[in-house]
Amino acid sequence: MKQNHRIETDTMGEVKVPINAMWGAQTQRSLENFRIGQETFPPIFIRSYLAIKKACATANYECNTLQKDIAEAIKKACDSITEEDIAKHFPLKIWQTGSGTQTNMNLNEVIANIANTSLGSEPGTKKPVHPNDHVNRSQSSNDTFPVAMHISTLMALRDQLYPALEKMINTLTQKATEFKDIVKIGRTHMQDAVPITLGQEFATYHDQLTSAKKRIENTAEELTHIPIGGTAVGTGLNTPPGFAERAAQHLSLYTKLKLSPMDNPAQAMAAHDTFSALAGALTSLASALHKIANDIRLMGSGPRCGLGELLLPENEPGSSIMPGKVNPTQAEALTMVCVQTTGLSAATSTACLSGHLELNVYKPLIIHNTLTSIQLLSDAITSFTENCLIGLQANTKKISDHLTNSLMLVTALTPHIGYENAALIAKTAHKEGLTLKEAAKKLGLIAEEDFEKLVNPVDMTRPKK
Amino acid sequence: MKQNHRIETDTMGEVKVPINAMWGAQTQRSLENFRIGQETFPPIFIRSYLAIKKACATANYECNTLQKDIAEAIKKACDSITEEDIAKHFPLKIWQTGSGTQTNMNLNEVIANIANTSLGSEPGTKKPVHPNDHVNRSQSSNDTFPVAMHISTLMALRDQLYPALEKMINTLTQKATEFKDIVKIGRTHMQDAVPITLGQEFATYHDQLTSAKKRIENTAEELTHIPIGGTAVGTGLNTPPGFAERAAQHLSLYTKLKLSPMDNPAQAMAAHDTFSALAGALTSLASALHKIANDIRLMGSGPRCGLGELLLPENEPGSSIMPGKVNPTQAEALTMVCVQTTGLSAATSTACLSGHLELNVYKPLIIHNTLTSIQLLSDAITSFTENCLIGLQANTKKISDHLTNSLMLVTALTPHIGYENAALIAKTAHKEGLTLKEAAKKLGLIAEEDFEKLVNPVDMTRPKK
Amino acid sequence: MKQNHRIETDTMGEVKVPINAMWGAQTQRSLENFRIGQETFPPIFIRSYLAIKKACATANYECNTLQKDIAEAIKKACDSITEEDIAKHFPLKIWQTGSGTQTNMNLNEVIANIANTSLGSEPGTKKPVHPNDHVNRSQSSNDTFPVAMHISTLMALRDQLYPALEKMINTLTQKATEFKDIVKIGRTHMQDAVPITLGQEFATYHDQLTSAKKRIENTAEELTHIPIGGTAVGTGLNTPPGFAERAAQHLSLYTKLKLSPMDNPAQAMAAHDTFSALAGALTSLASALHKIANDIRLMGSGPRCGLGELLLPENEPGSSIMPGKVNPTQAEALTMVCVQTTGLSAATSTACLSGHLELNVYKPLIIHNTLTSIQLLSDAITSFTENCLIGLQANTKKISDHLTNSLMLVTALTPHIGYENAALIAKTAHKEGLTLKEAAKKLGLIAEEDFEKLVNPVDMTRPKK
Amino acid sequence: MKQNHRIETDTMGEVKVPINAMWGAQTQRSLENFRIGQETFPPIFIRSYLAIKKACATANYECNTLQKDIAEAIKKACDSITEEDIAKHFPLKIWQTGSGTQTNMNLNEVIANIANTSLGSEPGTKKPVHPNDHVNRSQSSNDTFPVAMHISTLMALRDQLYPALEKMINTLTQKATEFKDIVKIGRTHMQDAVPITLGQEFATYHDQLTSAKKRIENTAEELTHIPIGGTAVGTGLNTPPGFAERAAQHLSLYTKLKLSPMDNPAQAMAAHDTFSALAGALTSLASALHKIANDIRLMGSGPRCGLGELLLPENEPGSSIMPGKVNPTQAEALTMVCVQTTGLSAATSTACLSGHLELNVYKPLIIHNTLTSIQLLSDAITSFTENCLIGLQANTKKISDHLTNSLMLVTALTPHIGYENAALIAKTAHKEGLTLKEAAKKLGLIAEEDFEKLVNPVDMTRPKK
Repeated sequence: MKQNHRIETDTMGEVKVPINAMWGAQTQRSLENFRIGQETFPPIFIRSYLAIKKACATANYECNTLQKDIAEAIKKACDSITEEDIAKHFPLKIWQTGSGTQTNMNLNEVIANIANTSLGSEPGTKKPVHPNDHVNRSQSSNDTFPVAMHISTLMALRDQLYPALEKMINTLTQKATEFKDIVKIGRTHMQDAVPITLGQEFATYHDQLTSAKKRIENTAEELTHIPIGGTAVGTGLNTPPGFAERAAQHLSLYTKLKLSPMDNPAQAMAAHDTFSALAGALTSLASALHKIANDIRLMGSGPRCGLGELLLPENEPGSSIMPGKVNPTQAEALTMVCVQTTGLSAATSTACLSGHLELNVYKPLIIHNTLTSIQLLSDAITSFTENCLIGLQANTKKISDHLTNSLMLVTALTPHIGYENAALIAKTAHKEGLTLKEAAKKLGLIAEEDFEKLVNPVDMTRPKK
Repeated sequence: MKQNHRIETDTMGEVKVPINAMWGAQTQRSLENFRIGQETFPPIFIRSYLAIKKACATANYECNTLQKDIAEAIKKACDSITEEDIAKHFPLKIWQTGSGTQTNMNLNEVIANIANTSLGSEPGTKKPVHPNDHVNRSQSSNDTFPVAMHISTLMALRDQLYPALEKMINTLTQKATEFKDIVKIGRTHMQDAVPITLGQEFATYHDQLTSAKKRIENTAEELTHIPIGGTAVGTGLNTPPGFAERAAQHLSLYTKLKLSPMDNPAQAMAAHDTFSALAGALTSLASALHKIANDIRLMGSGPRCGLGELLLPENEPGSSIMPGKVNPTQAEALTMVCVQTTGLSAATSTACLSGHLELNVYKPLIIHNTLTSIQLLSDAITSFTENCLIGLQANTKKISDHLTNSLMLVTALTPHIGYENAALIAKTAHKEGLTLKEAAKKLGLIAEEDFEKLVNPVDMTRPKK
Repeated sequence: MKQNHRIETDTMGEVKVPINAMWGAQTQRSLENFRIGQETFPPIFIRSYLAIKKACATANYECNTLQKDIAEAIKKACDSITEEDIAKHFPLKIWQTGSGTQTNMNLNEVIANIANTSLGSEPGTKKPVHPNDHVNRSQSSNDTFPVAMHISTLMALRDQLYPALEKMINTLTQKATEFKDIVKIGRTHMQDAVPITLGQEFATYHDQLTSAKKRIENTAEELTHIPIGGTAVGTGLNTPPGFAERAAQHLSLYTKLKLSPMDNPAQAMAAHDTFSALAGALTSLASALHKIANDIRLMGSGPRCGLGELLLPENEPGSSIMPGKVNPTQAEALTMVCVQTTGLSAATSTACLSGHLELNVYKPLIIHNTLTSIQLLSDAITSFTENCLIGLQANTKKISDHLTNSLMLVTALTPHIGYENAALIAKTAHKEGLTLKEAAKKLGLIAEEDFEKLVNPVDMTRPKK
Repeated sequence: MKQNHRIETDTMGEVKVPINAMWGAQTQRSLENFRIGQETFPPIFIRSYLAIKKACATANYECNTLQKDIAEAIKKACDSITEEDIAKHFPLKIWQTGSGTQTNMNLNEVIANIANTSLGSEPGTKKPVHPNDHVNRSQSSNDTFPVAMHISTLMALRDQLYPALEKMINTLTQKATEFKDIVKIGRTHMQDAVPITLGQEFATYHDQLTSAKKRIENTAEELTHIPIGGTAVGTGLNTPPGFAERAAQHLSLYTKLKLSPMDNPAQAMAAHDTFSALAGALTSLASALHKIANDIRLMGSGPRCGLGELLLPENEPGSSIMPGKVNPTQAEALTMVCVQTTGLSAATSTACLSGHLELNVYKPLIIHNTLTSIQLLSDAITSFTENCLIGLQANTKKISDHLTNSLMLVTALTPHIGYENAALIAKTAHKEGLTLKEAAKKLGLIAEEDFEKLVNPVDMTRPKK
């Protein structure tokens, strides 16, 4: 009968590994010892880690700490791993050791086995390429895992979040222009207030997102400084001279990011305050998005018994029981994602304040929540932009009716007749069901022609000239 | 060429659906409109929803709102769906409409298509079984989705969390007994304090978990009251007399849960305060577990430069760079899960306070976070119990050394010589590097035989007799 | 010149204390060493602690661990302290040692000084009553501070929160009755849905609060078990037999609470999971209140450009610039308090999971946040009830207009003509600006008299008979 | 009999105000309608608001929208208000209307009454200076309250947090230098790891705080852009040309801050995302501080049964029951403050995502939590620095013992004998209770002189040369 496993070993002894698996003993131990949840590391993270292994092999060769053929075999192995391989060879859960050592060893073992195979050896032999002595050379989990955290976050921001945000920002610019002449009633405290243009409202959404993006970029800049070469506790033990600089340089090339080694790598190993700050910056983006989505569903409420000032694209039937119902579903998905982000960020922050001495051991949680938040926000922003924002239309009839009826246009009179007289007009109109003009006339507080001139909604949407 | 899709329709028109899919138009629209993240509903949730559909079909038949053959076909379809089918037929994301309507329609469509196929008709015909008029009869997403939230949570607690907790609680009982005669130094403020037994420490862990479990059970009891029959806004529109009671009865039978219809279903549709409270109860469990895991890694710190009072099972090599290192990895996975739970719970609570009028539209997020927390906690508890707790050993040599050296044994003298004299002894011993007895003798504050009698660590671990 | 201080001493030496202060050396050290923030312990907490000191003196006397005259002097001192004294004699900040030892010593010192004065001695002499040897007899900060946490929380719930909640609940009952015949449009996803009565909406608010109150009561019940007699690490060191039972009995009498000693006091000293759970229960109340207040401001939006279905009492001018504006200010204060509660609860939960070994050292934070949340919720509930809820009126004209216009009444037709035909009617009406009846007629899908009979908003607010 | 009140009026009618109060009708209404909690606005906020009122009066005069004598009287009134007056004249609670309108009116009313008195008129006459028409001229609560939020935050950072942080950072620099040659065992996962210097540990703390400060400064920079001149909804209604620029210029002068008007003031009125981001930045500071304080209490644990590597200053007796006990109380106060900050920040973030349309109505909560966090962090940092950090000493005996015993020094051998052989040495030493050298010798894996040369703790604290 054909065997369906092979024996792999580590310093603790032998472990049976499925015959087709490319991982080794330590990965297998983790698989068996940590059967927790469904969450695994996303491809972007493994991809980042592969780039690190490749860059370190190159740097080690240049520093004479790896022989050329070993270094080349490691690099070739890294390059050979496809997206499909990633799904197959990196099965470890987020909920493992808090340093991510098991995932680092998963990388080391898979790369060593692939490299050894390519060199005519067999998986499990650790020869000629040893997972610790060669693939992990001049490295520790404690420095490389954080480097992978930094890089994968920078890549996810660059490739996922920023393009999604830019598309939404551009769409908001278009809408602000499209709606710039639509004067509508403003609302404060959910109550009727003075006029504003629909374009101004969308310009404000635009500005919120522009600020949010800048905040994220500012914080992310910190992540370009990487703790490569810190090894076990940030002191650089067992690294040859010049290693960190060289590794960072190669890594920059492979990832198209501008990376530099940290002066004090310990800061990004013992603590991850930057990720706490980034969680805060993502939360402030979520805050902006939640407000925008909420406003749009509020202004789109109706069709007959709500504010009804916006018409949302009708993408699907909204109810299994109420025929013909259409709901602001994209706003709902986006607001759920925003709330989820705040929760993931809260967990990240608690994790960040729970480090001890030379190592914060909540690393997998921190990067899982960071990458999940970025993906969810990116996807939800894109979905909202494409399926809701672009197709949004103004219900000019309803907007105009609201504007005409509003009592708060009286505010324009204040500089001329004083706050108290203006209040008297508004209150009289409210109480007696009159228009402002009727009330003003009845009270004799202002001449009709002055009223006409002053109470001009368009003029009320900007400072005096 | 063979077609790889068929046409399904809904009230908005035609939609192309993959030929092998059993879902219909609305599921397909959701798939295309909500490409957000990776998270889908877990099998336990779909399984719960299938039970609801079956129970409602039965109740509808009994209330004469469904013909026998239609009801039977629906029930048979529900029964026919295997675990594998669930993975295949229910692909929708968490991040969809906030009512979960799309998932309800996914159920309705799949069941209708299967039922129609079994009756000789074809998928997409909606005949003789219509997804809305028959499968969804006397129901709305707004009531059934919350019912599925209640039921799946109760099942996850019963089948996942409670067994895991019980195993950990039993293990703690064993450890408390095993360690009951090991007197050790207690620590408050991380500083040496008066003696306690290792057994007492584990008994306290036991008590924390027992209390935490009871709290969760108390809160979960609320969930046995289900908003079945509330339909669109909780008023029971379009339900026949007796429907809610009958549906709840059948559902109890199918799920082996004691369920009853709510007097006012609106409470569990417009709001989900119970889930906010359950999030709180789960957080209090996480709080207990985090403390326990933290204590164990603290007492297990070392092997030579830490407290070293506990010996943790050595499950795997701990470091890619430091040979021979063993780490408290199970404690790390558990503490990460605890912190994650607090974050998911925070998001749940924010979602719960964000409902509007007749419907809270953060339902998918709420149930996702609830079920994820339960699964993560259950798995991590089991992993920690099996891979760490059971194998835990006391390092009696180290424990004894600490106890002997401690200055805080002086507290036993307080009732006899007063706080200030006792302090003088402790301070003298500390300053001059003496034992307590030496210091007491030097200061002449107590007779040596009285010292011997009073400063008895074992006696110090209980009230006077 | 008159001296303005006296010398007090502790085991570390002499300290200058203001001549009029009744506290001693350790309180003074804390005042000087912890100049952090403004937050001090509220009177209800000091009051609780005084009751503990009194109960312990009585129990100590009964157990022969305190002489009668000393015990009596301590009790008299406790009784003599007025509300004004509390403000004057207990100045310590929340942000001190995490065990609250300094506040316990503040109690011990003040009571000893008052007792000594009453016995003819002088402050600072510690004779005949010693703060540690007598006032603190059979106690530790580590057990009494948690007891004070339990008791003050139970008192704050009983005296502040429950009465406030009951008043709001009763008011909601009245409103539910008052509004029971007002049929209005329901709204799901903020969009028009099927009818509901305004009374049903208020009955749902009522039910939410009733459930929330029950949840808090269930959790608070745990707090009636107190760690009295646990002393330093929960083992009962230095307590005489029967002490805990006697102290709990007297404390029950003094506080009118049903208190009992815990079997394992360590659980409430090393951890405070119950407070984490209570934070969760308070959050679920906040969740309910936030939703209610939000609904009311939404239904009260207008006066001319909003939903306008509720008329809120006009309590004050709403704007410094917009004359005549009235805002839902009570809803705003309440929602702010709800959000603040969730934040304070989050901090409490993080504090609860951060304990180590025999002592959680976040005790002052935990009780501060708990009592602050209770007070804020209680006050805001009362303010909202009295200044908004009681005076709330229905705008029946607007409610009726909305109901008449709504397209979702079509849902009543579904059981008769099917979901798809009903959808066709709704969509036709929406598209062509028709009433439902006009659209139904035009499409010929139902006889006019059937339409009249079936589309009856009042009937739609309940199950079929 | 002498009257103890006077009559003040607003647009809703007459209100009795205490005779000595300088506020008017609207402040009095708020006092009576919002009896919620204890929290009021801190002096720094009122001081900021006074600066705004003064700057606006000046700008209004320059723009010809206020007469010279009125403007002068307003400015003089602002200048005349002492710290004592602030406590007396501004009694309103945080938990009021969510726009802060009542506090703006409190300012307007007090200033008007003082100005009128100075001009020979009487309080309550509103003549010649009217609270709305003059003091509030060209302003709204909706723009000025956010401006006060921005300014008071910038002042609190500049005057409280930055100096406190700088002192701590400088102290850490000193400690890093003082400890730079003390080689000690590093710890990862709480387990013994490779050597590091105590100086490197403190340098890392230093770097964490330096980064945290920079992050806060980056975010705070956003706040220098102020929504002055936005008035009611951000459109600038009722402001004269040039008003915003002039007001910002005067305000910069008065506050010594570099302020500029926003292009789109609506962004800082409808939303407060910047405060959400600032909450995140403060949380990342709290994260750093929590870790530092935790490390110090961990390394200071003992005195005889803990790690004992650091000696903390003994500031006060630590226990009411355990004589001679000294605790890391400053670390406890600091960690409590850090946890409180994360809770307050969570509430701020939830508040920020809850805005609607033209106005976020959680403004008082947001500024209360921001200023409270800043004060608590500032005070706790100062207290910790002065009472703990400065006096911290290394216990070199204990540090040296730990270092000598550690097995992880074996890591230095890895590059020479390979990971597996090195592991064998460590495991043998551990199992048989040997030193590393003894084990190495026994196993014959390395020559003794090579061992001596390679296993050099000092060399292990830096990269190879």
